[in-house]
Amino acid sequence: MPAARLIALDWGTSSLRAYLLGDGGAVLASRHQPWGILQLPEGGFAAALQRLAGDWLAATPGLPVLASGMVGSAQGWREAAYAGCPADESALAAQLLQLEALPGVPLHIVPGVRVDGERPDVMRGEETQVIGLLSRQPALAARCSLLMPGTHSKWVQVQGGAITGLHTYMTGELYALLAQHSILGRPAREAASAMASDAAPDAAFERGVAAARTHVAGAMPLLFSVRTLVLTGQLAAADSLQYLSGLLLGDEIRCALQADAGAAAVPPMLVGEAALCERYRRALAQFGVSSSVAEAGAAATGLWCIALRAGLLRTA
Amino acid sequence: MPAARLIALDWGTSSLRAYLLGDGGAVLASRHQPWGILQLPEGGFAAALQRLAGDWLAATPGLPVLASGMVGSAQGWREAAYAGCPADESALAAQLLQLEALPGVPLHIVPGVRVDGERPDVMRGEETQVIGLLSRQPALAARCSLLMPGTHSKWVQVQGGAITGLHTYMTGELYALLAQHSILGRPAREAASAMASDAAPDAAFERGVAAARTHVAGAMPLLFSVRTLVLTGQLAAADSLQYLSGLLLGDEIRCALQADAGAAAVPPMLVGEAALCERYRRALAQFGVSSSVAEAGAAATGLWCIALRAGLLRTA
Repeated sequence: MPAARLIALDWGTSSLRAYLLGDGGAVLASRHQPWGILQLPEGGFAAALQRLAGDWLAATPGLPVLASGMVGSAQGWREAAYAGCPADESALAAQLLQLEALPGVPLHIVPGVRVDGERPDVMRGEETQVIGLLSRQPALAARCSLLMPGTHSKWVQVQGGAITGLHTYMTGELYALLAQHSILGRPAREAASAMASDAAPDAAFERGVAAARTHVAGAMPLLFSVRTLVLTGQLAAADSLQYLSGLLLGDEIRCALQADAGAAAVPPMLVGEAALCERYRRALAQFGVSSSVAEAGAAATGLWCIALRAGLLRTA
Repeated sequence: MPAARLIALDWGTSSLRAYLLGDGGAVLASRHQPWGILQLPEGGFAAALQRLAGDWLAATPGLPVLASGMVGSAQGWREAAYAGCPADESALAAQLLQLEALPGVPLHIVPGVRVDGERPDVMRGEETQVIGLLSRQPALAARCSLLMPGTHSKWVQVQGGAITGLHTYMTGELYALLAQHSILGRPAREAASAMASDAAPDAAFERGVAAARTHVAGAMPLLFSVRTLVLTGQLAAADSLQYLSGLLLGDEIRCALQADAGAAAVPPMLVGEAALCERYRRALAQFGVSSSVAEAGAAATGLWCIALRAGLLRTA
């Protein structure tokens, strides 16, 4: 087996992914557990790391460990400060937080990125994916717009190899809350037709996107129609969550294209989970915007690049 | 004690209010239980009625019983059809649903009101409050705009004594979901500074209203700022829910004033729970709209008027 050079941890709110990386950032092995910072196993952060990567550490003493994501938040292992914009690979590498994770094992954490101003914004974890993506596709570095969907969808602007802007939409969390807890989700819950998280977007989804696209005052006044269209027989209960998803994604895209000149000028590249990216790609197409989906795995590449830049990687 | 003429039931999702009415609709007695249609006591609807009003029925055999609200929904005791617009007192009285509630005791249920079209809307219970309000303040009947805040806020248009239009905003439900379940409510939850349901609106609330008022694309893109303003020290955790409340009410009011010519032309009268009405009144004032708050208890008056019109009340 090739020599291990780095343990890279993509440690978010709901999951922990560990990568064993070799020369050039090649993925030698990877593991996944649902041990996000809010659902840690018995023993907390240290136990999670020991159980997921203890054998890697034992096999290669002194192997550096670098993590990104919510592990560096106030609710995480220790809080890592946010880097200001513009934030490039060098800036992130210069601001790593170090703590002793296990006896004799230092852990470095990548800072998040913040945008200041009247309406500040922040991200943790996505900045590392951006760095990985720019390393894989250097042509993007001059200027690009990235759309990173998820619980919190991030629209990220890149110029000159640095993150220059950022806007968060709570679309994913809002969808989950409304589907699971609100009156809007009741027909689908009663019909036991909850939409699978990897469901393909369909005609009801497109109908929702179309409604949100033309409703320039915002989608809040449209939400109750998810219920009334079902009540009046104009929407099947089984289709109602696709429609709701379309309303919310359509509203996000309408706002982002309108508010963010960068996003409108440069079609966004989608970075994230495949089924969710496809959903956004379809919605963007209804706005006349053609987008592409980035290859998966940018986080591990980004962690490799930042570790290299920070001087964490020493020749064996 | 004056003769009882009607048992009036205001039966919603989360509570049941029973009124014993005498001549002219005078309230002889009233009772309240948290027996909304989704939290009925053992024995269901019949048991709730028997326990709350059984002694009234026993004391005056043949006493008519009229109910309004979600008791007439698909999740209620039996589904009462919606009356179309324009809907006045006569139209509602002509479409009562009748069922045998207890052995030998008929129960009548007021229909809800629906608005047809591309984006249909509905209400149940509020139509009866409107009828009661118009009876108490006849000057409003020619033309008025009513704002009925609650879990689902209703903006109701009245012309010529009839309900002619209706638009629902899910503001209250959305606030509760975000405060209780989302990441936005976490700082306040951790600071154990949840906002009391009858809290007075404060400066943080007004700040939220001001942000939503000027953000014409809608409040969805503003939601995450509830978190980032706290993270960056620009908003105290203890103030964050007031700010969120302001964002949501401000967005509702901005949309309603913009979308609904009637609401903009005639300052709305507020009908509902006092603390919530005061919150809306303050937010409306930030839009330069002065509003007044209707006296409480319109539901009982409305049930009396509809019962009278329907011929349910016979001279003793």
